[in-house]
Amino acid sequence: MDENKSFVKEIADIKTNFPQWYTDIVLKTEMVDYGPVKGTMIIRPYGYEIWENIQFELNKRIKNTGHKNAYFPLFIPYNFIAKEAEHVEGFAPEVAMVTHAGGEKLAEPIVVRPTSETLFGTMYSKWIKSWRDLPLLLNQWANVVRWEKTTRPFLRTTEFLWQEGHTAHATKQEAEEETIKMLHVYEEFMKNVLALPVLVGKKSEKEKFAGAETTYSVESITLDGKCLQSGTSHYLGQKFAKAFDIKFLDKDGEHKFVYTTSWGVSTRLIGAMIMAHGDVRGIALPPKVAPIQVVIIPISKKDEVKEKAENIFNSLKDKNIRCELDERNQSPGWKFNEWEMKGVPLRIEIGPRDIEKNCVQIQRRDTLTKEEVKFENIDEYVLNKLDEIQVAMYEKALKHLQSRIKEVHSFDELKEAVNNGFIAKSMWCGSRESEEKVKELTTATSRVMPFDQTPFDDKCVVTGEKAKFVVYFAKAY
Amino acid sequence: MDENKSFVKEIADIKTNFPQWYTDIVLKTEMVDYGPVKGTMIIRPYGYEIWENIQFELNKRIKNTGHKNAYFPLFIPYNFIAKEAEHVEGFAPEVAMVTHAGGEKLAEPIVVRPTSETLFGTMYSKWIKSWRDLPLLLNQWANVVRWEKTTRPFLRTTEFLWQEGHTAHATKQEAEEETIKMLHVYEEFMKNVLALPVLVGKKSEKEKFAGAETTYSVESITLDGKCLQSGTSHYLGQKFAKAFDIKFLDKDGEHKFVYTTSWGVSTRLIGAMIMAHGDVRGIALPPKVAPIQVVIIPISKKDEVKEKAENIFNSLKDKNIRCELDERNQSPGWKFNEWEMKGVPLRIEIGPRDIEKNCVQIQRRDTLTKEEVKFENIDEYVLNKLDEIQVAMYEKALKHLQSRIKEVHSFDELKEAVNNGFIAKSMWCGSRESEEKVKELTTATSRVMPFDQTPFDDKCVVTGEKAKFVVYFAKAY
Repeated sequence: MDENKSFVKEIADIKTNFPQWYTDIVLKTEMVDYGPVKGTMIIRPYGYEIWENIQFELNKRIKNTGHKNAYFPLFIPYNFIAKEAEHVEGFAPEVAMVTHAGGEKLAEPIVVRPTSETLFGTMYSKWIKSWRDLPLLLNQWANVVRWEKTTRPFLRTTEFLWQEGHTAHATKQEAEEETIKMLHVYEEFMKNVLALPVLVGKKSEKEKFAGAETTYSVESITLDGKCLQSGTSHYLGQKFAKAFDIKFLDKDGEHKFVYTTSWGVSTRLIGAMIMAHGDVRGIALPPKVAPIQVVIIPISKKDEVKEKAENIFNSLKDKNIRCELDERNQSPGWKFNEWEMKGVPLRIEIGPRDIEKNCVQIQRRDTLTKEEVKFENIDEYVLNKLDEIQVAMYEKALKHLQSRIKEVHSFDELKEAVNNGFIAKSMWCGSRESEEKVKELTTATSRVMPFDQTPFDDKCVVTGEKAKFVVYFAKAY
Repeated sequence: MDENKSFVKEIADIKTNFPQWYTDIVLKTEMVDYGPVKGTMIIRPYGYEIWENIQFELNKRIKNTGHKNAYFPLFIPYNFIAKEAEHVEGFAPEVAMVTHAGGEKLAEPIVVRPTSETLFGTMYSKWIKSWRDLPLLLNQWANVVRWEKTTRPFLRTTEFLWQEGHTAHATKQEAEEETIKMLHVYEEFMKNVLALPVLVGKKSEKEKFAGAETTYSVESITLDGKCLQSGTSHYLGQKFAKAFDIKFLDKDGEHKFVYTTSWGVSTRLIGAMIMAHGDVRGIALPPKVAPIQVVIIPISKKDEVKEKAENIFNSLKDKNIRCELDERNQSPGWKFNEWEMKGVPLRIEIGPRDIEKNCVQIQRRDTLTKEEVKFENIDEYVLNKLDEIQVAMYEKALKHLQSRIKEVHSFDELKEAVNNGFIAKSMWCGSRESEEKVKELTTATSRVMPFDQTPFDDKCVVTGEKAKFVVYFAKAY
């Protein structure tokens, strides 16, 4: 039990200092480490395997909705970024610039991509000639760079990994449908793979993407009641089409500008998941993305125990369950702590007494409940239990989210809600000034305006003017 | 047939202008396009799917040999590159440098990674404490940047995609074994997945990696008889361990430097494959990596033909065969040309007469031979034929390679060989001066010294001095 304490000592208290708990736990579980250039991160194998699982699941969904993957360059000429006025205003302050290469000063500086609308726009203008070329539905998995002042592993880093979809359509309606379709792909993916419930809706004018007509977002919630923008889908209208001259010959013989969209999620999803599923023992990973779904811990060094543990391991492996047999020279208690901290969904313990009874003890990470399972039932039990855990973790997170939404009717109520880890569901006039006032006085921001806009009051909670929107105000990471 | 000609017109003659044929074909098949920043490329879906298939197959092999994936940052402080003397000498002239970010001039310039030995070295020095932490076997899939003077899509580009493995070991022997093991993983992968035979061996002192003790390489051959360095595996000894202070506490209680290796292959493999398997009609793709393995072309617009074509498509799809049904409004001849150019391994033609006979016509891309296949046998025929093509393409390429190796006994013979598209198998003294002389007078370079060093002469083919090595001299892309 001493070893247990020493573990906990290095990790901040989850109740009283959640942000520090997060940073401690992602480092301690060896998911991530700091890179030498400020704000960069090394994604270590235990973190990267989560990303590989995310990529596998999301990539399937992106392809099943008709998109193809491509790879566009890291480097963008500076003048490209400047072609769309709002875009450059939003991104210029955050870009990293290459000014020297091959031992010489470059004639024109090059931007390390912060996002790739300008590059896709340039190529789409070259590739798209006729309505037959539409819709053009591409996606890429890539690294991007944004020079951020304050950073936190996975959540906000100088360089991060993401996917960015870029599509071009013949009509406004089709582009709008695509924007919403991909938003819902993210919502479904987060629910079924990451066990994350989300608030879904439209961003305010102030919070939308630089260059978008409309930005939609999926917002997850953290254990301390803050929001996390976890994925965005942008309807770009004809803004980039006009800036990059993307035209097509329509069926009616006329040349028209296309309508474009873009949408993305990043390695931030890993942080979102950790911030939603942890407890005092560490993190808890949903089975669908856990690098190790089952850990087998022999309780004794006896040959018969070792042999049985290996049998169980091989049998689970054959069923494509990601499992690990921990035969390290450490006490079972030390191992229990380590794997609970690392969030492995199921732990199988096997000792001499279990062998006598032809069974093992299996503990769930999410509920910490333990059951005795007969040898012959292990594989089936594990397969079923992993599915059960996946669903249970989502339901638990959903209850948490629902319990953290508070309908507010005055600015005081709003303030009290966001200061106490609640999301303030508010009626709002929609003005930029009122949004800035909320931020200044509470540090909370508008998160999304949900699709269900049924009003529950007629006055704006900030200004007292006539309310136009239902909106969620909350603090955010 | 007019359409056939117009196709060919845009593509240079493969026999008389192979380098131009290559560039024409990769653009025309929509595998790649030029990016706006000099030397960068856009990998379009038809090229990127090949890369995805390469990643899938190679990643399995990398994981099966005990390596784990991670992700290290794009950005490296300039002073890191300078820590290993030979490394900086080799890479400094090619790096791209970020000097401004977030609207400010940086205190120290940042290098966009050309390769990541220095970053892995830095972190390994932090992570490795004891013999228990060894071996440390990591790999990453990433983009890298090298500022090249002359570029060619896939073969040499400013930015390219690759995997780079970096491992640390307790002993010299173990590190050397790892270096050779991964070289053979590449060899086997290229044989069985890309249908590419290779020359395997050690690089000369002049051609080895900047900072390596020994570099090994797999070299493929092009249709015009040049070599292409397609993958390298480096034994780095303790050079990086000493430059980055990577030490471990050994079992005997002493602190020792580790031994490291690194190894990589890149998107160049796509170019290597295209340069090895094309003909006057275009490229030919090995089934294992072809984005489309089977294309189905209805010869008529009749309902019964359409329906049957769809049935065949769905049935093949169910067997996880990557297939496409081409129902575009073009003539069958036009489609035949297009898919032959794009290298699809099998083409299924189905028309009204075939329906009467309950069969289809199936043509192989590699041999251009055609067979009639009964409806009920299509799936099995296709599965078997794809395997057969995979092997046949390798055998054909192997014969080509073997026919292009010429044993030479004098400098004149060497010169004649390399000037006529042959690889000159030579006895060599190993001196840098002699290698430079060969390059100056023939533009050929030493490719590899094969593992089989059985001498066939005692004099160096360049200097006439005592020969020490068997080496292949050849021109290279």
